[in-house]
Amino acid sequence: MFNKIVIFGVGLIGGSVALALKKLPNPPQIIGVGRSDHSLQEALSLGLIDQAVTDIASALENADLVLIAAPVAQTPAILRTIRPHLAAQTVVTDAGSTKSDVMAYAQAELGDQFSQFVGGHPIAGAEKSGPGAAMADLYIGKNVILTPATVTSTAAVQKVTTLWQNCGALVSNMPPEEHDSVFAAVSHLPHLLAFALVEDLAKRGNAELLFKFAASGFRDFTRIAGSHPEMWRDIALANKQALLQELSSYQRAVSEMTALLESNDAEGLFALFEHASQARNAWAKSKIQ
Amino acid sequence: MFNKIVIFGVGLIGGSVALALKKLPNPPQIIGVGRSDHSLQEALSLGLIDQAVTDIASALENADLVLIAAPVAQTPAILRTIRPHLAAQTVVTDAGSTKSDVMAYAQAELGDQFSQFVGGHPIAGAEKSGPGAAMADLYIGKNVILTPATVTSTAAVQKVTTLWQNCGALVSNMPPEEHDSVFAAVSHLPHLLAFALVEDLAKRGNAELLFKFAASGFRDFTRIAGSHPEMWRDIALANKQALLQELSSYQRAVSEMTALLESNDAEGLFALFEHASQARNAWAKSKIQ
Repeated sequence: MFNKIVIFGVGLIGGSVALALKKLPNPPQIIGVGRSDHSLQEALSLGLIDQAVTDIASALENADLVLIAAPVAQTPAILRTIRPHLAAQTVVTDAGSTKSDVMAYAQAELGDQFSQFVGGHPIAGAEKSGPGAAMADLYIGKNVILTPATVTSTAAVQKVTTLWQNCGALVSNMPPEEHDSVFAAVSHLPHLLAFALVEDLAKRGNAELLFKFAASGFRDFTRIAGSHPEMWRDIALANKQALLQELSSYQRAVSEMTALLESNDAEGLFALFEHASQARNAWAKSKIQ
Repeated sequence: MFNKIVIFGVGLIGGSVALALKKLPNPPQIIGVGRSDHSLQEALSLGLIDQAVTDIASALENADLVLIAAPVAQTPAILRTIRPHLAAQTVVTDAGSTKSDVMAYAQAELGDQFSQFVGGHPIAGAEKSGPGAAMADLYIGKNVILTPATVTSTAAVQKVTTLWQNCGALVSNMPPEEHDSVFAAVSHLPHLLAFALVEDLAKRGNAELLFKFAASGFRDFTRIAGSHPEMWRDIALANKQALLQELSSYQRAVSEMTALLESNDAEGLFALFEHASQARNAWAKSKIQ
């Protein structure tokens, strides 16, 4: 199906795609492009890519697909670089966590070739990053969401769907705005809430005492507060509108819960906790399968 | 050191103390008392206790120490039951998650024998509960906080300290009010915030879609929302004042973060996320040792 694939950013996300494709019966040639020479050399020596290329024209020649797996802030510049060399049969996709902004970048930068672009978001990650963290099985059973525009070519969507299915992923389509509103709720909001909790405790005079007695509940609740600050600043700003709505909805929910506590409403608190714990446990069960 | 120990509630918490003591060179006799005949029989057959007793008078005869490891709501009734049979050399302690309320119960129920009571809180737990979940090593390296009152006998505090040190725990003392304010911040608040988030999503029309795409960040953040609703209702109400303060402080912190986002303050968001992620990662590192 694929003869040549170009990956911008051969870290955990891009490198794991490369490793999965390498396991196909007829693996494509994989070209790595990146800002860091060190990462590219590491990707080469780990066998993630067949070639590390700095000349974009030769990289894109006869390429079936370009995957942009660099930080989202670099996406407009990357699109600008590839545009002059983008043949009609080459499909472009990305792996960013926000999609309305990426679709707007692609429309602005690719002009009449915007129909060749398919926004994508693999819902997978790991504690570590970089080429050394790449795993062939990272995407097996994981969701990947594609966010085609109305003008996007059906063939392009099909190609990107095949790419992710080749990695073992489950592919869904939705409009970019819906994607961003779903992820504001289930991912971006929890990250911001965890950052806010840790910061609220860390800046207190008795922070050392508090952290001394924080245990496993705190550990899990705040794990995502250890995430990359630059990436999360970019995600928060890119998905600002949806996130502001979620923050406001959450503040309302906390205020309602606080009111139950203030009025000693034992039944109300029990009902809230019970409903939430049932929903949480049913969700966890459905995810194990 | 101990010849006879009486445990009210031989589930995960009480049963794990029993198992740890059984490993001592000269293990004490361990008597189990409980509301559920089924649990007591299970504890007997698992070897957690030497005897299951319903007659409180004979259970307490010559006992060195009574450990109350039942739900906190049962503590006043248990104290009332043991009071008539409580000899001067018997020390009483508990394992509840809130301490101001327990100290007040003990003062009210034990009268002039209140000096024999030492409030305690082992900071340890596990996913499972009941006698079958008990583990001899549950408390190794874990913190246990004792909250003696000014009238508490030094010998009683020493006895309870030895009990937990025999289980491998690290014992600290602090006033009950300070305990409750620390745990409002690092435990009770995160639990309520997780319940609120899950409930806010679960009651929406598109909850199924949201949960479908919720992934590992959501899983860890909300793990504690799967906790026991009855226990958390009781903790919230018992620690109401400290918890209301924490909820209000947290709402303020979220409002400040929201203001940064609203005004596109990229630097401010980055500084907040960076400070929080450094604090979180330093904490996690300090806990591994």
